Amino acid sequence: MRLKVEIFSQGEEVLTGQTVDTNAAWLAQKLVDMGFEVKRHTVVGDNLHDLQSLLQEISHRADCCICTGGLGPTIDDLTAQAVAEAFNQPLQLDPVALQQIAQYYSRRKRVMADANRKQALLPQGATRIDNEWGTAPGFSIQHNACWFAFVPGVPSEMKAMFDEKIAAILAQRFSLQPDRLVTLRSVGIGESDLQEKINKLQIPETVQLSFRAGTDDVQTKLLFPVATAQQQIKALVNQVVDSIGVYVFAVDNLDKRQGGLVDVIDQLMQQAGYSLSVQETATQGLIAAKCITRPWLRAANFSQSLVQLAGKLGVPINNGDYLSSAKNIALKIQQQDQTDIVLVQLYRGSAQRFQQKKQNIILYTVLLTADGTRSSVSTVAGPAKRKQNQAAIQALDLLRRYLQY
Amino acid sequence: MRLKVEIFSQGEEVLTGQTVDTNAAWLAQKLVDMGFEVKRHTVVGDNLHDLQSLLQEISHRADCCICTGGLGPTIDDLTAQAVAEAFNQPLQLDPVALQQIAQYYSRRKRVMADANRKQALLPQGATRIDNEWGTAPGFSIQHNACWFAFVPGVPSEMKAMFDEKIAAILAQRFSLQPDRLVTLRSVGIGESDLQEKINKLQIPETVQLSFRAGTDDVQTKLLFPVATAQQQIKALVNQVVDSIGVYVFAVDNLDKRQGGLVDVIDQLMQQAGYSLSVQETATQGLIAAKCITRPWLRAANFSQSLVQLAGKLGVPINNGDYLSSAKNIALKIQQQDQTDIVLVQLYRGSAQRFQQKKQNIILYTVLLTADGTRSSVSTVAGPAKRKQNQAAIQALDLLRRYLQY
Repeated sequence: MRLKVEIFSQGEEVLTGQTVDTNAAWLAQKLVDMGFEVKRHTVVGDNLHDLQSLLQEISHRADCCICTGGLGPTIDDLTAQAVAEAFNQPLQLDPVALQQIAQYYSRRKRVMADANRKQALLPQGATRIDNEWGTAPGFSIQHNACWFAFVPGVPSEMKAMFDEKIAAILAQRFSLQPDRLVTLRSVGIGESDLQEKINKLQIPETVQLSFRAGTDDVQTKLLFPVATAQQQIKALVNQVVDSIGVYVFAVDNLDKRQGGLVDVIDQLMQQAGYSLSVQETATQGLIAAKCITRPWLRAANFSQSLVQLAGKLGVPINNGDYLSSAKNIALKIQQQDQTDIVLVQLYRGSAQRFQQKKQNIILYTVLLTADGTRSSVSTVAGPAKRKQNQAAIQALDLLRRYLQY
Repeated sequence: MRLKVEIFSQGEEVLTGQTVDTNAAWLAQKLVDMGFEVKRHTVVGDNLHDLQSLLQEISHRADCCICTGGLGPTIDDLTAQAVAEAFNQPLQLDPVALQQIAQYYSRRKRVMADANRKQALLPQGATRIDNEWGTAPGFSIQHNACWFAFVPGVPSEMKAMFDEKIAAILAQRFSLQPDRLVTLRSVGIGESDLQEKINKLQIPETVQLSFRAGTDDVQTKLLFPVATAQQQIKALVNQVVDSIGVYVFAVDNLDKRQGGLVDVIDQLMQQAGYSLSVQETATQGLIAAKCITRPWLRAANFSQSLVQLAGKLGVPINNGDYLSSAKNIALKIQQQDQTDIVLVQLYRGSAQRFQQKKQNIILYTVLLTADGTRSSVSTVAGPAKRKQNQAAIQALDLLRRYLQY
């Protein structure tokens, strides 16, 4: 049985959505990597009753809980008080904490406000966790089944305190065995088709399989128990990659091909020393925008009207034959820009169709390289921004496949 | 007493920190705006027991709960099953849902996988919420004190379903007395400067003031008690707008100028019947990409090298004088494209500077119109993607100010 950990964030800003709770995701990753099973994240506001009942709940449910926020000097910072009341451990002044807070101010040549005195009040039986990055000390306390650690909600202070203080305490206090996660990233295939392909394989029961559809790729995740041999991991991952086929463009945490679609393209373009020009229509700049900071993208153009574009380039367009028009445009751009690879995407579909989420548009994508041209014809549907993004991903994927296969 | 709502997110990727739960913050804001009191956010993973116990808990605690995630086609998508078991409402096939899913695939000329059938299984007594943006239908169900709505975790689908389906159901089902929220949107000024300007005004204590820095604008929010007269709201908002000045581009929920920066530009461009060409450098396609579906954007170009660009256009570049080079480029593009307005942005800074988050780059933005040229010189810092986005916003804001003032 894995040790169960919960993450608890306190604050009205997070609760009302003024602030996105990035602390919880950061802590969750750290705790998973250490070998904990993260069971819940919970957010509550600056309300003594809500804080107390949540603390009680967690003390029965989890082995460990990391709590962020509510340690500030103002009246709406209630965490220490809530702990004191929920666990029946009255607040008492920690003289070392008070000294540290006073020093924090004197080092900055500022006067400590009276309100900051409150931050040195810790529940009885708590162990102070020094905060060298801000005024609010953290603290830890055991109650029922659970060991609690409380840190400020300011991300920089929280992260520093976790990395430099709490991680070591956890490693010492708990007997942890981290799993090994391998993530396959693919484009052009949906979650359900992935599952069907993988269902044909024999995945051992000890390996946890899951899927995740992002905006730019679909991920297949394989979680191996700590004891699994590298050889075994490789063998199974290779089987899965083979069964999915060319849709897979990266295998995070195992392979050299790592990261997002543009990261993988970047690696291959840099290795080959290629340069690229792009002609965009449906994507309206998004293909280029996704390649920000990549030195191999030399030029990109967007034109709303195919007729105007053809006129500007002095290229014949074959009425209705989008693929051959795209090839003509690519050849002309290669002449002009002197780049190794040219990517041209045209589409068929009115402005109205583009905007209507139930309507699709047809994409004609052509890749001109030293080895000849490759092309694809596909459809995209959904709201305009989704069409735009999918069109960009499909164009980039045509390039990726050329580079990778 | 306000009605209590909870937000519940399901999914291993959120629980383990692979994904930051931006859905919860988005929903929380919407629900607060509608007049609910948000009491908790909770995240649990793909675990039937954890899902069931959380559903039970919430059904006793809240009046309403919005749940995201776990409606996909794969075996780790357990939400419907958890609802069925927790609320003792066995799953049954919804033939309309099945038909909708089949149509989703046939419109995309793809074959529906068997696994997708599972998405049409809804708990008995549940009401289907149609999903026109993806395959997984949502559903709602009442249990104990709480009305639950379940939607997919994919942000685009979740947001569309909330805005176009669930918001209306909530308004009808619950007697909500929302405070009146007026949001001033601005560009080019930070939160602390906004606060300083507003501090000089006398804001009544009943009006709640808050700020929110988004990626594309900074918002000043004024929350008025429900009984406040329209006249009073207008008078105070006008004072605030005047004190902030030209940075304000929209006043949501009061003014005709509503929505994001591109929405406001769109309205003004369409009214004036103007067309636009853009030359991008630091933004690498992002200015154009942000204007997706806007018919007035006729053409956009990106070029990595200023020398190559000047060569292509046959334009002299003044060494080091970026503003005058940008003007020359704008004039040439206007000749070529015959558009009413040309926006050209150049920048000074090496590729290395661009990538280093502590380094800034200098932007030179020129707007050529029938009334002459306008220009701005500014710096942007931060990671490359932030530089790219800020550069795009600043370019678009130069256009917005021309159109608005």
